Amino acid sequence: MKVSVCRKAHFNAAHRLYNSSWSFEKNQEIFGKCNNPNFHGHNYNLEVWVKGEIDPETGYVIDLKILKSIIESEIEDRFDHKNLNEDTIEFKDLIPTAENITVVIWKLIKAKLNPNFDLKIRLYETERNVVEFEG
Amino acid sequence: MKVSVCRKAHFNAAHRLYNSSWSFEKNQEIFGKCNNPNFHGHNYNLEVWVKGEIDPETGYVIDLKILKSIIESEIEDRFDHKNLNEDTIEFKDLIPTAENITVVIWKLIKAKLNPNFDLKIRLYETERNVVEFEG
Amino acid sequence: MKVSVCRKAHFNAAHRLYNSSWSFEKNQEIFGKCNNPNFHGHNYNLEVWVKGEIDPETGYVIDLKILKSIIESEIEDRFDHKNLNEDTIEFKDLIPTAENITVVIWKLIKAKLNPNFDLKIRLYETERNVVEFEG
Amino acid sequence: MKVSVCRKAHFNAAHRLYNSSWSFEKNQEIFGKCNNPNFHGHNYNLEVWVKGEIDPETGYVIDLKILKSIIESEIEDRFDHKNLNEDTIEFKDLIPTAENITVVIWKLIKAKLNPNFDLKIRLYETERNVVEFEG
Amino acid sequence: MKVSVCRKAHFNAAHRLYNSSWSFEKNQEIFGKCNNPNFHGHNYNLEVWVKGEIDPETGYVIDLKILKSIIESEIEDRFDHKNLNEDTIEFKDLIPTAENITVVIWKLIKAKLNPNFDLKIRLYETERNVVEFEG
Amino acid sequence: MKVSVCRKAHFNAAHRLYNSSWSFEKNQEIFGKCNNPNFHGHNYNLEVWVKGEIDPETGYVIDLKILKSIIESEIEDRFDHKNLNEDTIEFKDLIPTAENITVVIWKLIKAKLNPNFDLKIRLYETERNVVEFEG
Repeated sequence: MKVSVCRKAHFNAAHRLYNSSWSFEKNQEIFGKCNNPNFHGHNYNLEVWVKGEIDPETGYVIDLKILKSIIESEIEDRFDHKNLNEDTIEFKDLIPTAENITVVIWKLIKAKLNPNFDLKIRLYETERNVVEFEG
Repeated sequence: MKVSVCRKAHFNAAHRLYNSSWSFEKNQEIFGKCNNPNFHGHNYNLEVWVKGEIDPETGYVIDLKILKSIIESEIEDRFDHKNLNEDTIEFKDLIPTAENITVVIWKLIKAKLNPNFDLKIRLYETERNVVEFEG
Repeated sequence: MKVSVCRKAHFNAAHRLYNSSWSFEKNQEIFGKCNNPNFHGHNYNLEVWVKGEIDPETGYVIDLKILKSIIESEIEDRFDHKNLNEDTIEFKDLIPTAENITVVIWKLIKAKLNPNFDLKIRLYETERNVVEFEG
Repeated sequence: MKVSVCRKAHFNAAHRLYNSSWSFEKNQEIFGKCNNPNFHGHNYNLEVWVKGEIDPETGYVIDLKILKSIIESEIEDRFDHKNLNEDTIEFKDLIPTAENITVVIWKLIKAKLNPNFDLKIRLYETERNVVEFEG
Repeated sequence: MKVSVCRKAHFNAAHRLYNSSWSFEKNQEIFGKCNNPNFHGHNYNLEVWVKGEIDPETGYVIDLKILKSIIESEIEDRFDHKNLNEDTIEFKDLIPTAENITVVIWKLIKAKLNPNFDLKIRLYETERNVVEFEG
Repeated sequence: MKVSVCRKAHFNAAHRLYNSSWSFEKNQEIFGKCNNPNFHGHNYNLEVWVKGEIDPETGYVIDLKILKSIIESEIEDRFDHKNLNEDTIEFKDLIPTAENITVVIWKLIKAKLNPNFDLKIRLYETERNVVEFEG
């Protein structure tokens, strides 16, 4: 009898979409304005969904204080108020699209979570652009 | 390793709910105010979720410009600022409930999408009335 | 020491924008898709703001049950699930733009309210199209 | 070909989180401010998702008037403007965490629903704390 | 050339609406379910609007870290996870309606703010019940 | 009898907050993480409120197509997917705080608008950080 609980978080970051093995023209054709060499940015809103059994002693699936602390150390400290291309190792060789950011976040949190839990990540790059990954 | 991406859209339309094989009284009993012969209307908010592999060259599941263009030609041009009962062939013989509209939208978009993709449609007829279909 | 309180409501309606003293072509030029002769529609979200002194006995500016009942009889019964052009006298000779609907609603509620209160109406025709009137 | 439809509802309630078999100190350590003996409270927003076949005669999965009436009698009448710990039998011996409230709501509605329907409950304890259960 | 800036905050609290100089019946008639002797509760969402000149050295009207710290010490520490009737001195002899809570919050923050600033408080008791006060 | 109408828009941009006449340490003390030399970014949501008389021929205060086109040429083309510090002349010598961005947007739109209209700008730098300016 598994229940899902969600904790929300957010971070603000700059990024640029381009493939370094392509010409500027090819990048412009595929990524358009997102290829601005001086970067642009977003408010990323994050939903972290953890699914598991309810602990009968606490009534909790997971103590959200623990989940909050994982999100702070693994995601917010790493990405908030950062330039994803310039300031992080995760996107040195990986294009920081919303899809790739979502998978990176999933892996970072999954590694710190009790393996009994299922994990789903939903990332809003804008209100209109949403990505979801559940492993 | 499949990831879901969402594009949002919206259209404003008039409609009337009634079953032409029933009496006015039976329609009134089942559909109440939605059976107004002069029509009423809604702002329909649409979420189109496409699930597939991330293309390693672009970091995208699907180029959202392509998805946007499918939604414009298949859904917005067809239904936006229209009377669903009077102006469309899809609802000539099909009651335009939120459920039926959702399935019609799913079929119209599915037909234009690479068959490798999974498709889920979520339709908000109002903020309080939501329908979801994934085939 | 005046305080403002808000009650929200909503109604779904069909309408058509056109000026009956103009040609179809002139209407098409000004109102575009909103001139569809078969109508289109919207979910109208309404905020009714009443400003006045706090009654020290109740702690209320106005009992919201009273305000709710005024909104139901004056606005929802009149406009919900209606065709504004065909089913109402208010828009027989008045174009049902969001601006005109807002002023009509303000007048209908103002007439039923204690004159000591200030009244402000905010109307969302869509999430992106908002009108405000305070007399 | 199953379609999901959602009806939203809400109730406002007071509660306190504590395990009666623990000391006050242990409760304080686990539940922190939520262990206030004088209670605190929330606006609970509820989404009830019902999944089933579309009835070809009505175009509906379920008549939302019926679902609304089940939610009113089973959930709102029971929990709205109540103290969950003091005023209900459901939480006499069960800690009213969002997880436990969600499972209780699922069971109460499931018992009144045609067994052909699948049921999913999503409960927002706050905008930032969400729980989901689908049996 | 004055500009307004807003900081949002929230607190969860229990309360009961009743006038201690009235009979239980009179309280029931006026306050209905809000008169539950065991209390009910809400998520209160708060907007604190400060209006003043932009400081040309910082580009800020007010450093939001300072405003955040005033809101924490004056409002959140005082009211969050509290029973407004039982745990606070502000509502010992004042009915904790949304109107009265809003005026109390305005006075508490105003007393800590540079008098050059104008202050407006908006309080959401629920998504549907909003109060505004600007002194 | 003046009525206000609102058009919403949005742009995504990178920025850095720092005062070039200060030391890095002083900037760090005042602007903290916002002083990242590699920039960070935001989704800026914009509300443009225009207040004026209703034109009796159209029922409009202003044709929103005209307002939309002003916002596109003056704001979106200038700031969307840009680095505000590096790519714009407006913020060459002006710190791109939300307050300063709001005043700049107000001046740019005011210059293109019929002087009979009142103008109010509301800018959301994040969901939690909002600025308003009305001249």
